[in-house]
Amino acid sequence: MGGGMRILGIDPGLTRCGVGIIEAVSVRAPQLIDAGVVRTSPAMDHAHRLLAIEEGLEAWIVANRPDTVAVERVFAQHNVITVTGTAQAAGIAMLIAARHGIPVALHTPTEVKAAITGSGSADKAQVAAMVVRILKLDEAPKPADAADAVALALCQLWRGGSVNRYAAAVQEHAARRGRR
Amino acid sequence: MGGGMRILGIDPGLTRCGVGIIEAVSVRAPQLIDAGVVRTSPAMDHAHRLLAIEEGLEAWIVANRPDTVAVERVFAQHNVITVTGTAQAAGIAMLIAARHGIPVALHTPTEVKAAITGSGSADKAQVAAMVVRILKLDEAPKPADAADAVALALCQLWRGGSVNRYAAAVQEHAARRGRR
Repeated sequence: MGGGMRILGIDPGLTRCGVGIIEAVSVRAPQLIDAGVVRTSPAMDHAHRLLAIEEGLEAWIVANRPDTVAVERVFAQHNVITVTGTAQAAGIAMLIAARHGIPVALHTPTEVKAAITGSGSADKAQVAAMVVRILKLDEAPKPADAADAVALALCQLWRGGSVNRYAAAVQEHAARRGRR
Repeated sequence: MGGGMRILGIDPGLTRCGVGIIEAVSVRAPQLIDAGVVRTSPAMDHAHRLLAIEEGLEAWIVANRPDTVAVERVFAQHNVITVTGTAQAAGIAMLIAARHGIPVALHTPTEVKAAITGSGSADKAQVAAMVVRILKLDEAPKPADAADAVALALCQLWRGGSVNRYAAAVQEHAARRGRR
């Protein structure tokens, strides 16, 4: 584990959930541990796709034991059908983190772009290029959803303030449950 | 169990998930087994609310062993924030059903109203009145979310066709997993 803080970034989606794990002893020296995607087939029924996402994300969490999970904040945009699946995948990511007692933080796509590139309107290629540079990689994690998830983890490393709020709420909730 | 078919209706929501269980030996003689709500407090952080919904719905499923789960189909309406929580609660309901190998069916609010009252534009009071009449109750299940969940279960009993499609997909998926 190296004693550093481990952050799991999750870019939620019904067809592809990007996942990226970084570890950092200090804010200045993040390292990429692993990145990939949890995929589900559109040929499966919706309920079983959600179950496959849960099983996939659970496996990533068990294997990597992150200290924090950062999830992209979902907004309803043009495509309502897509956003429902995305919101559900994000919800499952949050649910699993809570079940493991891991604090969850949410960041908007704009916050991630701004944290990584300095510009909230950067495109995906610019974000991927900065991910490569920051983590001293040979090439960007593939597919794009994996790179986005790593960017989310880096955003969390640098903006992490909100985690403390979540961690406090988690502890408070645990204490409340303990008293019942 | 009485040998009848058990249907669990779930009216998803972040603050209140309505739950209603009916059992029917035939389409003509449904009986109310139980109804209620799974509540989560807005004072909890979002991830822990989702976890509480999972724990609550899981307990209903384990206690009542439904043959089918019917969930209200979520549409993004005016309030995007609310719909995200609702979509996530619906996703968790579907996920738990899939985990237990129970087929899931979705019905829109209009389909439920039309199935119960004959009119897709019926109001909540009309739906509740018909639930009372159909199930020969003394009064409507309380709160309103519980009555809505019972209506959803009745809609599933009468419109059930789509379950067969889901059941087929579930079996196909199980067969596919078995082959891995």
